[in-house]
Amino acid sequence: MHILITGAAGMIGRKLAERLVRDGGLNGKPIGRLTLTDIAPPQAPTGFRGQVEARTDDLPAPGVAQSLARGRPDAIFHLAAVVSGEAETDFDKGYRVNLDGTRALLEAVRRTGDGYRPKFVFTSSIAVYGAPFPHAIPDDFHLTPLTSYGTQKAVCELLLADYHRRGFLDGIGIRLPAICVRPGKPNKAASGFFSNIIREPLAGQQAVLPVREDVLHTHASPRTAINFLIHGAGLSREQLGARINLAMPGVCCTVSEQIAALRRIAGERVAGRIRREPDALVDRIVSGWPTRFDARRALALGFRPETSFEDIIRIHIEDELGGRFVQ
Amino acid sequence: MHILITGAAGMIGRKLAERLVRDGGLNGKPIGRLTLTDIAPPQAPTGFRGQVEARTDDLPAPGVAQSLARGRPDAIFHLAAVVSGEAETDFDKGYRVNLDGTRALLEAVRRTGDGYRPKFVFTSSIAVYGAPFPHAIPDDFHLTPLTSYGTQKAVCELLLADYHRRGFLDGIGIRLPAICVRPGKPNKAASGFFSNIIREPLAGQQAVLPVREDVLHTHASPRTAINFLIHGAGLSREQLGARINLAMPGVCCTVSEQIAALRRIAGERVAGRIRREPDALVDRIVSGWPTRFDARRALALGFRPETSFEDIIRIHIEDELGGRFVQ
Repeated sequence: MHILITGAAGMIGRKLAERLVRDGGLNGKPIGRLTLTDIAPPQAPTGFRGQVEARTDDLPAPGVAQSLARGRPDAIFHLAAVVSGEAETDFDKGYRVNLDGTRALLEAVRRTGDGYRPKFVFTSSIAVYGAPFPHAIPDDFHLTPLTSYGTQKAVCELLLADYHRRGFLDGIGIRLPAICVRPGKPNKAASGFFSNIIREPLAGQQAVLPVREDVLHTHASPRTAINFLIHGAGLSREQLGARINLAMPGVCCTVSEQIAALRRIAGERVAGRIRREPDALVDRIVSGWPTRFDARRALALGFRPETSFEDIIRIHIEDELGGRFVQ
Repeated sequence: MHILITGAAGMIGRKLAERLVRDGGLNGKPIGRLTLTDIAPPQAPTGFRGQVEARTDDLPAPGVAQSLARGRPDAIFHLAAVVSGEAETDFDKGYRVNLDGTRALLEAVRRTGDGYRPKFVFTSSIAVYGAPFPHAIPDDFHLTPLTSYGTQKAVCELLLADYHRRGFLDGIGIRLPAICVRPGKPNKAASGFFSNIIREPLAGQQAVLPVREDVLHTHASPRTAINFLIHGAGLSREQLGARINLAMPGVCCTVSEQIAALRRIAGERVAGRIRREPDALVDRIVSGWPTRFDARRALALGFRPETSFEDIIRIHIEDELGGRFVQ
């Protein structure tokens, strides 16, 4: 089996490649070949005994998508995207990468023809939703994105569903919830604090909380996000039906509950490293985000979220900190 | 005021141009200039005293959208589209005209810059919805089109909303219900029979009904469809809010109620010209269509449908038959 990952140099892309190598297979078939591509050089995962190609590509550039499809990957994990903030500040770049890049890949798959029909896993986002929201967002809630990024993701979901319906590929769109705890340095994303207030205190650092503690949000760990992508790749056309773009379940809790979970796991001293610094701008941005999902379809299809925010913290300590944190 | 109509040679395009000329203005401002464009030569409406340009254009071809935007129309009615059946049989053409053509026009508007921000009225369709449906489709129901045409319309709605949000234009998307009674010859569209069973008997001709009489559908006359477009052009940003794509209200009735209305208006003999010839394929296609809308937002914004199917028949007799029909 040949697997292609776009956006392979990103956090999810790297973890997905490592996981696939660790599993050795996908959907019960051994993985013999791995193609990793990104605008930044992707790292080949260690321990893989098959053929691996790590490519540096500008996906929407002429000929790139075709050259990726020419390898006829059996499964494509399409993660490559300009992130939310950049898609908002650079209108042209956002549309070029997030819309034109995805469309180029879909078209390259379609034009390969000759019976080629790969599994195509697209990472969408809860940014496809726009406020105002009901108490919990049902599976049949409309997509009214309030960012260019969300628009591009929603457009690609529609294209994917049409290419799937026409039989050019077997598609699934996974609307990932907020990934928490994101490893690495604190970043400037407005959503960064959800991870910062857990990761930094566990590393002995101070973290800033810019919003009120009653802010509610839905989270999944990086490990679970990868599980979602792999589980999605294993679902058949028959299982999915016509509605192939799915909101994922997650752990829905308030910031206050996040902090309480941190306190239970790591103690008062760690939880004490969070400094409250209300920021009206962040507060306003966050208030436009979806909070709670009634992700019945995904649950019925076997997608499994963590069961508590404590699980999410434990996974971070296991996967990123080697089981230890700074008391 | 300068008005641009794309798809100006089509039924709605022609009627819209005639109506604007008859009104002499839009949103309280006199119309001094009219640009009509279509892939087939549009006819200049009679009686217009301003400047009129009737162009034959292939909208997605390089430079065409820019040349249309260069005239800085104050209002754009974008009706040009490959119809549902053709977009399904010719995948490339559907995406080229319905998606790339619309995007080219949006981009041409954006790139004009220099404070240019026209009113942009986009004709969408109830094809953006896909079965299964609730009893009545609410305004916040998701878009899961089951045709390439519906996909293209839904994608353009999303793009329009983003261009609107970014301030490049003042957009509104109008999801027109089934237009009934369509003038002209019976066509092969699966939805054609809704019009055929009224138009043909009134013209003394036999009509074929291919579905069961309990089939439910929502209708608007051509006159009302034009009203919707003109009313939409008059709504402000503040009135519309962030959700600029709107399902329209209409007359919801069964085929049996359509026929009863025809009988009341034109008599038993006219209604007797309908021949039942069940067609399993048409029945299957129609069963996937949306039936009933709970179009609260449009009603609250002042869009007015006909109040009965009899009104729809009377409008056809007035507007198309000069007030007379074949007894």
